[in-house]
Amino acid sequence: MTLTEAPAQIFAGDPGSRVDFAIRAVTDHIRENGMRVGDSLPGEGHFADRLGVSRAVMREAFGALAALRLIDVANGRKARVGAMDGSIIAASLDHAVSTAQITVPEIWEVRRTIEVKTAALAAACRTDEEADRIVALAAEMVRSRDDMPTMTRIDIAFHEAIAKASHNALFVQIVASFAPLMEVAVPAAWRTRKAGSEPDVMLERHRRVAEAIRARDPAAAAAAMEDHFDAAVRNDLAAGGAN
Amino acid sequence: MTLTEAPAQIFAGDPGSRVDFAIRAVTDHIRENGMRVGDSLPGEGHFADRLGVSRAVMREAFGALAALRLIDVANGRKARVGAMDGSIIAASLDHAVSTAQITVPEIWEVRRTIEVKTAALAAACRTDEEADRIVALAAEMVRSRDDMPTMTRIDIAFHEAIAKASHNALFVQIVASFAPLMEVAVPAAWRTRKAGSEPDVMLERHRRVAEAIRARDPAAAAAAMEDHFDAAVRNDLAAGGAN
Repeated sequence: MTLTEAPAQIFAGDPGSRVDFAIRAVTDHIRENGMRVGDSLPGEGHFADRLGVSRAVMREAFGALAALRLIDVANGRKARVGAMDGSIIAASLDHAVSTAQITVPEIWEVRRTIEVKTAALAAACRTDEEADRIVALAAEMVRSRDDMPTMTRIDIAFHEAIAKASHNALFVQIVASFAPLMEVAVPAAWRTRKAGSEPDVMLERHRRVAEAIRARDPAAAAAAMEDHFDAAVRNDLAAGGAN
Repeated sequence: MTLTEAPAQIFAGDPGSRVDFAIRAVTDHIRENGMRVGDSLPGEGHFADRLGVSRAVMREAFGALAALRLIDVANGRKARVGAMDGSIIAASLDHAVSTAQITVPEIWEVRRTIEVKTAALAAACRTDEEADRIVALAAEMVRSRDDMPTMTRIDIAFHEAIAKASHNALFVQIVASFAPLMEVAVPAAWRTRKAGSEPDVMLERHRRVAEAIRARDPAAAAAAMEDHFDAAVRNDLAAGGAN
């Protein structure tokens, strides 16, 4: 442990830096002990004694770590190492959009970049079970086309299933972080498509992505996902840009 | 304001959900008042009175919001609306790697996906000033090749300057979130390259990315960035995978 080797000037700063020091001590403890998700951490009192900081400072540090989902203290239980959680990026995105730091079209451009890649990787890496699930979700979208909440839920599950099949856990988290925005944008886009053949085209594009992944064809999967986003950007953003 | 319309059952839950309710009330306040980065928020007492929660609950909520950088309460000043900050994603990545939830090669695959795109967008969208800066940073890398800390700093600045020239603020944040990992991986990779002509090849690849961006050639910029990552993955990951 390096906790006792911390330079003395950390304690001389404002209370904020004492909390930062306590936060760093907990993350160092997790790292240096090779802890894994779900492992129990020592209590606030243990860290307070060892670091020579007050219980109040330690409580603030645990609060910040819990807010960042680095630890899990749900229902007042003993603190455990937290699982990576797309909701942290999602909260950042939501805040940045609502305060005009980023725009919805900017997020959609990032989504397209990420998901064209996850489609290609899924085609290369998917298991048979993953391919079956992706194809089944595309089919279920067709069946639920008149039930907006179900359709939205399945659309999100479709994109998350593709990310999982990429077998890259960071892509999974990033795609999960887009879900709250899709919950608003998908129904909005769908309403603008109600007229004419647009819904059929959209459902067909999802089916083509799924089939390319099943066929283990990365180039076709990437191209089909590009087409999906070309249509989505044309249609969704007129609607989704307002949220 | 919708604060008073919150369903009653929120108050019946455990203390955690009361804090969640308070957090939501603050983010709703920011959104509904069209607040921007740096705008001052009402104090904890104001929210506590209006929401009918204790000061302790409100203090926890402000602490969580500050941890997520949604508000800024540095040095005990009045809370202000916070600027989006890549350090939140960086902290998530660091935790996820140290607890074996994701691997460094997975992050590098995401980085490659993002930065091949930012290189292409930069070639299409860069201003003359941005092109000059990117070219200058590539040249500065050559001059600082025997000074590892400077070289690392400039390498990070080079990739961030390209992200800025993409004119997509979310790409800027995502690329910024990779900086702490680069601070470890770049020197490690460079040490393995000390022998032979590898450093020259690496510097030449940076220069080719910069020149393609200056030439407004998105396809060449994307291809040069792919080459850069092909080499980086071969060399860096053997070294960087250990951190």
